[in-house]
Amino acid sequence: MGDREIFSPLRWNDGVLQLIDQLRLPGEEVWIDCASEDEVHRAIRTMIVRGAPAIGCAAAYGVAIAARRIAGESPELARDGFAAEIETVLADLATARPTAVNLFWALDEMRNVVRAAEKSASARQLADAMEQRAVSIHGEDIAMCQRIGQHGADFVPDGGTVLTHCNAGALATGGYGTALGVIRAAHEAGKTLSVIADETRPYLQGARLTAWELMRDGLDVTVIPDGAAAALLRRGEIQCCVVGADRIAANGDAANKIGTYGVALAANASNVPFYVAAPRSTVDLQTARGADIPIEEREGAEMFNIGTTRIAPAQVKGRYPAFDVTPAHLITAIITDAGVARPPYTESLAQLMSSDTIRS
Amino acid sequence: MGDREIFSPLRWNDGVLQLIDQLRLPGEEVWIDCASEDEVHRAIRTMIVRGAPAIGCAAAYGVAIAARRIAGESPELARDGFAAEIETVLADLATARPTAVNLFWALDEMRNVVRAAEKSASARQLADAMEQRAVSIHGEDIAMCQRIGQHGADFVPDGGTVLTHCNAGALATGGYGTALGVIRAAHEAGKTLSVIADETRPYLQGARLTAWELMRDGLDVTVIPDGAAAALLRRGEIQCCVVGADRIAANGDAANKIGTYGVALAANASNVPFYVAAPRSTVDLQTARGADIPIEEREGAEMFNIGTTRIAPAQVKGRYPAFDVTPAHLITAIITDAGVARPPYTESLAQLMSSDTIRS
Repeated sequence: MGDREIFSPLRWNDGVLQLIDQLRLPGEEVWIDCASEDEVHRAIRTMIVRGAPAIGCAAAYGVAIAARRIAGESPELARDGFAAEIETVLADLATARPTAVNLFWALDEMRNVVRAAEKSASARQLADAMEQRAVSIHGEDIAMCQRIGQHGADFVPDGGTVLTHCNAGALATGGYGTALGVIRAAHEAGKTLSVIADETRPYLQGARLTAWELMRDGLDVTVIPDGAAAALLRRGEIQCCVVGADRIAANGDAANKIGTYGVALAANASNVPFYVAAPRSTVDLQTARGADIPIEEREGAEMFNIGTTRIAPAQVKGRYPAFDVTPAHLITAIITDAGVARPPYTESLAQLMSSDTIRS
Repeated sequence: MGDREIFSPLRWNDGVLQLIDQLRLPGEEVWIDCASEDEVHRAIRTMIVRGAPAIGCAAAYGVAIAARRIAGESPELARDGFAAEIETVLADLATARPTAVNLFWALDEMRNVVRAAEKSASARQLADAMEQRAVSIHGEDIAMCQRIGQHGADFVPDGGTVLTHCNAGALATGGYGTALGVIRAAHEAGKTLSVIADETRPYLQGARLTAWELMRDGLDVTVIPDGAAAALLRRGEIQCCVVGADRIAANGDAANKIGTYGVALAANASNVPFYVAAPRSTVDLQTARGADIPIEEREGAEMFNIGTTRIAPAQVKGRYPAFDVTPAHLITAIITDAGVARPPYTESLAQLMSSDTIRS
């Protein structure tokens, strides 16, 4: 994990998973102890931990906690009896957030630890192996973010201002972040830079989370209303944009937090480069183009209560698609842990996905 | 003022100005009584009344209230003595909001009532004339909005969805509104339409005020986060955009609430018409182009407190330019009380401004 301390929203402390409560940031920095798989389930469901990679890491630790409990309760169990008990845990954790694909990937990885063990392995040996795998999933996620950062740092001009949208940061991953990983890597390479964070309505991940984690690392960050991004781009005050992605289609169209597409349009209108930074696992070659990506439509009423304040008339209707799709022609490059894809993306992404670069 | 009841944020009631408190909308519908010019001054300064045309109307009534007070205290005063007293009132009201150009226009109109009077006019006659002028300024403002509506209604497709940004509505004017005047006129012409209102961060004029006044009139309105406008335009869910303007340059570049430019970019990317609706007095032929329009930069910290909720870390920096400039090439037409200007605007606006259409 390198020489620098890497902030992670998860800590593994003597068999207990500690999570920073993202619902209470930035007002309070509170760490929640999860000492059982049920507590981990609840933390994922209630969004104490959010961001697909971070959810995957938390779920893996949840399975490790359950494995230790099972080994304590039934030290006599060998592999197959142990596997049966663990299946119940996996099935339960899989229901915590049904859409985060990394959750299912992490649970499969934990299942594979048991499958790969000797038939005669003891419950304690299995619990040890599962703890090691959870720790390695977490570490690999951070390493993957750092590779994204290394591949992207050169795109950030020294002395420049970088705009980002939402929170594709340490808080959304095992640590370091994807879009914010690019910014961190440029900063660590000695570049002077300023960050502009869209506040990102309605959940304000930019104002609450991106601002918090960049200030914590000593980076210069300024929050703007989402509607101000286009004007600042037009004024020449922003030199590049870097955002994350939730899914990237085979043709390079990228789904990300609602508002991203508008930033891409404004960047292109002002000839400012617009980069997407995401792990290679975000690229879905089975999805041909952005129009095929299902977009979650959230309950509109969610946006009308901010803390204790009601911001709209009673009974007013709201619409809140959680994501939008940025068409590939607006994306300057896609920065992944396996390298950088450039247009035309149908070719470059296929090449990236078939390369034998280690995938974490 | 037509057959229908026109909602106005101002009521003139037996020498007292009543203002709907726009700071408490939409939570509470409270009317504030202003029985002295000092109370009117305070209402403008504290934004109980906002929107340049509405501020102008309020100031005119403030002068009328002062004139009645002076006539009561000094019935012996004739024109010149009365004028001297009124000058103090005008000077004081002019400091309430230094940027709203309609404020100064309305105060000049009230001064002209005294100047145009006979030298021997009594204080009571002058107070009567000033009350009549305040009432007519208010009525003319509503009529001007209705003319904007008539000129714009044809642009709204029957059965379509119209997007608007901020509040260019009844609440910002003497009544009826500019951009919302176009929507009201289309509705009154029998068209079926739905309105999408950008919530308009940071002050949420769309969620708070536009939603409130359109629901009050029985129009179908849905509020979205500002960042969702581009995605809905791309999906084909919006048939036209109508916004107001704070200043329009000679070449057609238009300054309006921050976020407007991004809407215009997204509308153009999806081939959706983008209209600006504003009184002819908003066109400033002395300003050659948008880059010459001074843009007010507000205190960034204003955006971080919503009601009692703090939405960003302590000490985080914020940037909040209050307006942006939409370049003329993104504007399909400019709808004014004197007619509709189309590209090329340098010619069409000059022609509109030199026409002899009655200007109010």
